[in-house]
Amino acid sequence: MTNDECTDLFIKHFTFWNNLSQPEKELLCNNVSKVTYTMGSTLHSGSEDCVGFILVKSGQLRVYMLSEEGREITLYRLFKGDTCILSASCVLDAITFDVFINAEEESEVMLIKSSVFNQLTKQNIYVEAYASKLAVMRFSEVMWTMQQILFMSFDKRLAVFLVDELSKSTESTKNDEIKLTHEQIARYIGSAREVVTRMLKYFADEGIVKLSRGTIKIIDKKKLKELI
Amino acid sequence: MTNDECTDLFIKHFTFWNNLSQPEKELLCNNVSKVTYTMGSTLHSGSEDCVGFILVKSGQLRVYMLSEEGREITLYRLFKGDTCILSASCVLDAITFDVFINAEEESEVMLIKSSVFNQLTKQNIYVEAYASKLAVMRFSEVMWTMQQILFMSFDKRLAVFLVDELSKSTESTKNDEIKLTHEQIARYIGSAREVVTRMLKYFADEGIVKLSRGTIKIIDKKKLKELI
Repeated sequence: MTNDECTDLFIKHFTFWNNLSQPEKELLCNNVSKVTYTMGSTLHSGSEDCVGFILVKSGQLRVYMLSEEGREITLYRLFKGDTCILSASCVLDAITFDVFINAEEESEVMLIKSSVFNQLTKQNIYVEAYASKLAVMRFSEVMWTMQQILFMSFDKRLAVFLVDELSKSTESTKNDEIKLTHEQIARYIGSAREVVTRMLKYFADEGIVKLSRGTIKIIDKKKLKELI
Repeated sequence: MTNDECTDLFIKHFTFWNNLSQPEKELLCNNVSKVTYTMGSTLHSGSEDCVGFILVKSGQLRVYMLSEEGREITLYRLFKGDTCILSASCVLDAITFDVFINAEEESEVMLIKSSVFNQLTKQNIYVEAYASKLAVMRFSEVMWTMQQILFMSFDKRLAVFLVDELSKSTESTKNDEIKLTHEQIARYIGSAREVVTRMLKYFADEGIVKLSRGTIKIIDKKKLKELI
């Protein structure tokens, strides 16, 4: 990557860019690589990993918690333009928990190795402040998710999820269809497949959705939104 | 407070102390006050408040989430020597969630007004980095709590709570007694009183605890720990 390309890439995202020395800028630019993750692959597995700092160029990543029994709870998702510090959590001593990150679609990311990001964090206070601030932003998102999970009744949660899904513009949502299995939805919202199936059946009985194999068609958006 | 007293107070806690200019040190020292909160009083109520940065001198504070229906979930507790940045959450733009803080006992705190802490955060990158880092440490604690709530079976959660309580050295824990009502325990671990009562009865039947009004006596610590 040329110096100009590198500046173009980072100046938008890294508020600390102008506080880097020339050697620091070069260190960063010489250690960024483009990585493509295939759909379904795991980028980061809890404490075993510390891949590095991620900037998403395309695709979709999902950050989740995992219980010992294998139950997953989705904390948040990352789309184009989003950055991820939890995949470099070893850089921040204050982070003592583990998350997992999957590519939900084929995803292209710019990756800065943890060792390099770590070095910059230790030697430049602006980088440290930036890294911590990013983590705090994720803290806010996780708190929102937790509030959904812990405080909302399940019908409300499922309705919120379906409306969110519908708002993503893909080929299928144009026809008000969501192409996900009940198993997938359960995983995304931290519930059990049976519970999702039961509630979707209830929604179908209420004339809110129409169910077919692998697809949920929303037929009464107004009623769905009234649940929220 | 004299300059020396102020330095003594802060140098232990504030990693940024040596990176403050003399006027900044003076600003801080001239704007710290000792506040006593009576047992049961609320220090901080979500977005309505931004009391300031807190350093606990004695007592116990409880930080919790509150649902619209009034359900509480304890996120963590603060004891002597602990600091709290979430009571000054307006200082950090990245924090977009609300927490509530109660004094669980009569508590004495050193308080730095939000406006002053905000000014220092904006003008000194070391203070900003410190504030964010503190928030990230709380993020880690909250993630731990969430894992307990979302992934642990309830008997395990209650056992963890009782063992934790027992490890605090108070007059009553000397006799292996915990002086809390079922209602209080339910609030602390984010459950319902009925659920706590049912599980405690089960523990009593198993010969793990002995229940009397307002007191839980642990009679088989080994068995209790085996649940964890």
